Amino acid sequence: MMLAPLRVGIAGLGTVGGSVLRRLHAQRTALGQRTGRDIVVTAVSARDRAKPRGMDVGALHWFDDPVVLATSDQIDLFVELMGGSEGPAKVAVEAALQAGKPVVTANKALLAHHGMALAELAEAKHAALAFEASVAGGIPIVKTLREGLAGNQVERVQGILNGTCNYILTRMEAEGLSFGDCLVEAQRLGYAEADPTFDVDGFDTAHKLAILTTLAFGVALDIEALHIEGIRSITPADLAAADELGYRIKLLGVAQRVGARVDGRVHPTMVPKSTALAQVGGVTNAVTIFADAVRELTLIGPGAGGEATASAVVADIADIARGIRSAPLGLPVTALGAAATLPVSEHEGGFYIRLSVRDTPGAVAAIAARMAERSISFESIVQRHPPRHGPDPSDVVPVVLVTYRTVESALRDALDAVVADGYIAELPQVIRIERE
Amino acid sequence: MMLAPLRVGIAGLGTVGGSVLRRLHAQRTALGQRTGRDIVVTAVSARDRAKPRGMDVGALHWFDDPVVLATSDQIDLFVELMGGSEGPAKVAVEAALQAGKPVVTANKALLAHHGMALAELAEAKHAALAFEASVAGGIPIVKTLREGLAGNQVERVQGILNGTCNYILTRMEAEGLSFGDCLVEAQRLGYAEADPTFDVDGFDTAHKLAILTTLAFGVALDIEALHIEGIRSITPADLAAADELGYRIKLLGVAQRVGARVDGRVHPTMVPKSTALAQVGGVTNAVTIFADAVRELTLIGPGAGGEATASAVVADIADIARGIRSAPLGLPVTALGAAATLPVSEHEGGFYIRLSVRDTPGAVAAIAARMAERSISFESIVQRHPPRHGPDPSDVVPVVLVTYRTVESALRDALDAVVADGYIAELPQVIRIERE
Repeated sequence: MMLAPLRVGIAGLGTVGGSVLRRLHAQRTALGQRTGRDIVVTAVSARDRAKPRGMDVGALHWFDDPVVLATSDQIDLFVELMGGSEGPAKVAVEAALQAGKPVVTANKALLAHHGMALAELAEAKHAALAFEASVAGGIPIVKTLREGLAGNQVERVQGILNGTCNYILTRMEAEGLSFGDCLVEAQRLGYAEADPTFDVDGFDTAHKLAILTTLAFGVALDIEALHIEGIRSITPADLAAADELGYRIKLLGVAQRVGARVDGRVHPTMVPKSTALAQVGGVTNAVTIFADAVRELTLIGPGAGGEATASAVVADIADIARGIRSAPLGLPVTALGAAATLPVSEHEGGFYIRLSVRDTPGAVAAIAARMAERSISFESIVQRHPPRHGPDPSDVVPVVLVTYRTVESALRDALDAVVADGYIAELPQVIRIERE
Repeated sequence: MMLAPLRVGIAGLGTVGGSVLRRLHAQRTALGQRTGRDIVVTAVSARDRAKPRGMDVGALHWFDDPVVLATSDQIDLFVELMGGSEGPAKVAVEAALQAGKPVVTANKALLAHHGMALAELAEAKHAALAFEASVAGGIPIVKTLREGLAGNQVERVQGILNGTCNYILTRMEAEGLSFGDCLVEAQRLGYAEADPTFDVDGFDTAHKLAILTTLAFGVALDIEALHIEGIRSITPADLAAADELGYRIKLLGVAQRVGARVDGRVHPTMVPKSTALAQVGGVTNAVTIFADAVRELTLIGPGAGGEATASAVVADIADIARGIRSAPLGLPVTALGAAATLPVSEHEGGFYIRLSVRDTPGAVAAIAARMAERSISFESIVQRHPPRHGPDPSDVVPVVLVTYRTVESALRDALDAVVADGYIAELPQVIRIERE
């Protein structure tokens, strides 16, 4: 019993769009057998009609305006691969859903900023809205959270969601190089943009974490609720100290359930070397889910690249061809809880602290006292370069502290007091720890 | 638009069945919202009605005969958790499908031996047949291969699919203990059965690999096509040599496409320490998929246990509630290719060889010559305990060789010649290597 062909329209024929086009063509027979429905690209929209794309696009209907394509009678499914949270991508996706056409997109910014409204529209029109490619490229993490772990209560999800940052941190650790040097290298290799802000300051990770948080915990999608820090402040000294203490430093997106609230954060994180995430190097992405039934599940794979992203786009198209119906955000929008946020000041965990302490008698004792006043205790204290010939106040000694579980506000108060005491020469470096 | 409730009948209320029962009950609201359909267990079948199961089963319809449950008007979906490739499990699953009822099972033996016939029946009756729990417990590997990677051509799938073996090998490596000692320990901890044959001789892994091979390559399910070896022959000396060479030893199920044929094998395997699989210790399972679009994707999680297995069973039930329709084996049974098998003699790869060489002059040179005659060359040669005072023919010297890529039959021929030459005191130990 073969259904009518599924006619696909693709807006955006860049690296990913070209891969999707070629892959749907090359896998057409297998996809038809897998889904019970012939899947065929009938129409496209892109800026440059003449650009080489590795296959003949002459027979396809060509639309100059992606919004016209989105609502065209020529297509049954609209694939948005233009990018951008506003403008044509948003207008075209809205138009397609409004017309009751299912949409597949790789656009994390669009989802992170307008996911709730788009999901609501998709539900109202009984049209699918699929976005596997928007998080962690070729890793099927959306499907895993939405379907594979449907019987679980998720407790925490954390991941390496930005290949640029993981590449830079991996190189800094391996070579002892500075952030700046590794950024330049990453830019030369095409792993980082000319303006790297979006990646290295954590915003890209935050977009993806916002989506994962909603899928994992059934709360409203709200990127504003996340605490966001990037990796610019990480130094070779931090990576060396982490190594000595048995940790690695990764830019993680972390979201965990704390009572009725969600603690959502993007920041450089110390993770024990024995964890699966610590062992993920280079541009590779990885996500670990902690949940009541599976306990711990980790997925490791490519987070970007045309072919890997196309893999996720084609899987979404195949699911729609199969007739899979799920609420886009896992639960119906009306069933998503308000995103009650745990402020980062209330976050509880271990902390790594690197201080540049003036080499005066009693300095370390005074610092320890400031911590003890707030009941902060230490797993380890490493004074890495002890003075050779007695204290010298013009010298600065690096001191590394690792705390046991403590509330972040108590730690910040203690460090403010340490700064006010005048024993340290630079502002403290603080890196949060996730112990599993 | 809420559909009618999905009435579930469960046959088998052991560890997994009890977990499924409790989990469906605890997650009922969330599952209803996720799937758009209320999911409710209405009937069960188990041996002992009085056994405590952590919740009241008094209100459920109780069937003494699982086959009667399978076709009962009281249920819309049959969950088979009795186990066994023959007998009541098989008869009940056939009866449910014959009656057009969807089936969820965790029964790898049933699938491995009768998967083709059952899938054919399911297709003919337009009834779902889902078995996520049959491979790698809580890891959603069936969903990933069948749906998540639908747009990929899979080249290789390999995994740690048996927690018992991985536990034993991890302990042997960490403690330098023998296979026998670690097996006893695993039995004491409940990780191994009193009769461990099914696990340690590779049959359990083979059942799972047979299923993965069909899903990955679209070939007929055929457990007879697999080459199967277990881990009884592995010694602390092999683990120590592996460590020195930068490898770990894991019992892997490996299936790879070689031209139009499939090379499917279960055996102890040396994997570089840097790979994701090498880093998986204890009873944890893991699967790595190599495919044209995602390149490399690894999933790590719990391979057994009531809750983890129940997670997979509940996900299958939720998919059926959502109305997901897929061919049980990925492709329709009629579209599955014949399983053209690459005989293990034609397998190509690297090999680790440990020889107990009599300490006579020229022995190693003679062995190397036997290899060279067949164009076998070496990545490394380690003679680990060189004699102290010149050769002594009553001594036996362990020699470890690691070959470059070679055809297995050539290697076996060379080793036969080495044995015939009389230079070695024991039969050679041979372990295949997977270099990524």
